Amino acid sequence: MPTITGVTVTDVRFPTSLELDGSDAMNPDCDYSAAYVVLETDGTAGDGAPLAGYGLTFTIGRGTDIVVEAATQQAALLVGRDTDAIARDMGGLYRDLTADSQLRWLGPEKGVVHLSLAAVMNAAWDLVARQAGKPLWRLLADLTPEQLVDVADLRYLSDVLTREDAVALLREREGGKAERLAELERRGYPVYTTSAGWLGYDDAKLRRLCQEAVDEGYSHVKLKVGANVDDDRRRLAIAREVIGPDRKLMIDANQVWDVPQAIEWVRALSDFDLHWIEEPTSPDDILGHAAIREALAPIGVATGEHCHNRVMFKQLIQAGSLDFLQLDTGRLASINEIVAVLLLAAHTGVKVCPHAGGVGLCEMVQHVSVLDYVAIGADLDGRVTEYVEHLHEHFTDPVEVRDDGEGPGYVVPSRPGYSTEMFPESVATYTFRDGAYWAGARAAAEDVAGAAS
Amino acid sequence: MPTITGVTVTDVRFPTSLELDGSDAMNPDCDYSAAYVVLETDGTAGDGAPLAGYGLTFTIGRGTDIVVEAATQQAALLVGRDTDAIARDMGGLYRDLTADSQLRWLGPEKGVVHLSLAAVMNAAWDLVARQAGKPLWRLLADLTPEQLVDVADLRYLSDVLTREDAVALLREREGGKAERLAELERRGYPVYTTSAGWLGYDDAKLRRLCQEAVDEGYSHVKLKVGANVDDDRRRLAIAREVIGPDRKLMIDANQVWDVPQAIEWVRALSDFDLHWIEEPTSPDDILGHAAIREALAPIGVATGEHCHNRVMFKQLIQAGSLDFLQLDTGRLASINEIVAVLLLAAHTGVKVCPHAGGVGLCEMVQHVSVLDYVAIGADLDGRVTEYVEHLHEHFTDPVEVRDDGEGPGYVVPSRPGYSTEMFPESVATYTFRDGAYWAGARAAAEDVAGAAS
Repeated sequence: MPTITGVTVTDVRFPTSLELDGSDAMNPDCDYSAAYVVLETDGTAGDGAPLAGYGLTFTIGRGTDIVVEAATQQAALLVGRDTDAIARDMGGLYRDLTADSQLRWLGPEKGVVHLSLAAVMNAAWDLVARQAGKPLWRLLADLTPEQLVDVADLRYLSDVLTREDAVALLREREGGKAERLAELERRGYPVYTTSAGWLGYDDAKLRRLCQEAVDEGYSHVKLKVGANVDDDRRRLAIAREVIGPDRKLMIDANQVWDVPQAIEWVRALSDFDLHWIEEPTSPDDILGHAAIREALAPIGVATGEHCHNRVMFKQLIQAGSLDFLQLDTGRLASINEIVAVLLLAAHTGVKVCPHAGGVGLCEMVQHVSVLDYVAIGADLDGRVTEYVEHLHEHFTDPVEVRDDGEGPGYVVPSRPGYSTEMFPESVATYTFRDGAYWAGARAAAEDVAGAAS
Repeated sequence: MPTITGVTVTDVRFPTSLELDGSDAMNPDCDYSAAYVVLETDGTAGDGAPLAGYGLTFTIGRGTDIVVEAATQQAALLVGRDTDAIARDMGGLYRDLTADSQLRWLGPEKGVVHLSLAAVMNAAWDLVARQAGKPLWRLLADLTPEQLVDVADLRYLSDVLTREDAVALLREREGGKAERLAELERRGYPVYTTSAGWLGYDDAKLRRLCQEAVDEGYSHVKLKVGANVDDDRRRLAIAREVIGPDRKLMIDANQVWDVPQAIEWVRALSDFDLHWIEEPTSPDDILGHAAIREALAPIGVATGEHCHNRVMFKQLIQAGSLDFLQLDTGRLASINEIVAVLLLAAHTGVKVCPHAGGVGLCEMVQHVSVLDYVAIGADLDGRVTEYVEHLHEHFTDPVEVRDDGEGPGYVVPSRPGYSTEMFPESVATYTFRDGAYWAGARAAAEDVAGAAS
């Protein structure tokens, strides 16, 4: 009967702005960051090491400290709890953490308090999977339909999906689980790459990275657009030339347009045979996405990385706003809310193509996509999950992408947990502001300032 | 040329949970609170006192410190700025404060970083109105149509309202401004009261408060509902009996229902001749509100106190989700976003009935409602603004509600600023955790704990 004995929440920032990794039309300079939660216990894991849970939400620099403060307040409720009891009722833990009406006022279910809830609950999910000695996707796939629905937050969804609908769907999907898992173990979960197309890269680098994507077997390539339409046309021409006519080319505008402008701009790019336009406008604009989708078909609409909760996803589906649902494992409030969204999508036949990249999102998303195919959505047609090739070196159980002849795919995770543990040295080095990296950068900046004065 | 020389942001909490003021089905125990921003300058106001700006956002207890931290980071950008330059371009200041893509990631435009932005910009608006020697509503009503549109954040709205639409609307409303202002100066801006119907009050207190509302001339009374349908029927029967058949009776569910449940529950209350159902479900559920409205007509739907930005209001209007638009002056990002929402509502003929109460919301909302009638919406038909009679004693320029024979109304504010300054003694006493009140409460709690051990 291990007990949670303590919590630490750390502001970890990687200086990615130096390389323009992650640059797009809305976010010109990101330091990819995480509010990183560690739940300590007095127990031991299966391998004899101390049992702990590691979780995070992804941020892009300033303000990570604000999320850390919120996560610290929420996580304090976990200290002293019995991990066996938590594991038996993760739905109950989630409800306890969301029941604080005073913190709820600051959302509700959105913004900082929802990001921080994700970090805390992600750590709790990692903990219970480690305690069970299973990768998280398997812990969840092994649950009965009723047990899986019990962890899902179905509140405010019953006009589209009732509890009975959800159980019936999961029961029906129990057939074929073993075959679908065997398929993923053979080929991996299909991925696409965004590594090529950041806005800050010059044409030569774009061309080289597109060629590398082709050489690595990718069938989808995505470019950031939206700063300048002529630049976009030039860059898309390069990408289409390099990847040829058969691979899929997607674009991502990161919310820079109003609705009429999105329609006009993407029409000006439509001769490049685009598979989807991602985040064409405000992530809150359900009806705007629906209008854009109707105007631009057959170009698909993809959105969701900033979609803040299941109620918004419900409506994006109801309004016919999207073709590709890009949920984010750091923005939705952990598996409890993600399973609800996967159920909504499966119930309505919407393609889930999760967002990833950033810090640790690929590590988490592989569990979500494997779970979706094995137990919930049970369909790979048109599904492809994002993969960005950076910062994995900081994780103890990093994603592995392999191509065994059917294109690159996430190798099905096999180690216990949610793959969200960072190396202690990485955390120590990049802790803001006093980790070795940031202390050194500050000292160097002061030296420069001193020399100049 | 005064300069902003410093900023303080304070976590102020009033122990309202002791009286169950503010209790409803979602929020059983609130300590009405504020993240309170003071912008200090080296200038002097018209009366010779130091020139400063005071602003706040309303919170309900825990987590106010998180908003304070966010507001502190955002407000830091104001230090060193020339107040004359700020006053000339409040739209530019707003854009500067919202341009930080790293903080934007934590919303975008929602949750903690949007609440904190409201507090900071509310203080800036108070500052420029004080510097101009005008109440804020008048500063804004005196702008040209182009100037007023320049401060409005119209981003993401152009599919419903273009800049040209907005200017044309304001130009058309310039006629009759003086007459409308004279009307408000005679009768005040019509208000309704929520003071009677908090869920935590017993039947005798409910009856007494309803009678007081009648005696004070109110034509609208609102009750909290949603915990138990039998209790709701009993309480509504009392209220309807006391207020008679001609006054309007509204109910407020504070988001406790799913969509089908909202429809069923309100139908079970519909024999009390209800004017509106407020917040029947998740504030994010635009399509859910539309379905509820369609099912329950002629009972109106009111929502907006948790509507987090103008993009959501745009869609609530587009989808036909509401009859009464209850914007909140602490949740929308200040006048810049509020004017955009007032323009949307005026352009589409939607009735604006702002939310108020809490801490300081009534003080701000009077400026918004007066501005709306004088310069933007220009219609009083069906409009009524919330008024709650508590915590005004902490403000240096508190709201005044008067009945000169046409029902209670907010007296048009006459003193310079946004009426958002709190007495320094109130701030000092209720600063969390070390103000005299909270230090005393903690010491008393420790005494009790000591005596019990």
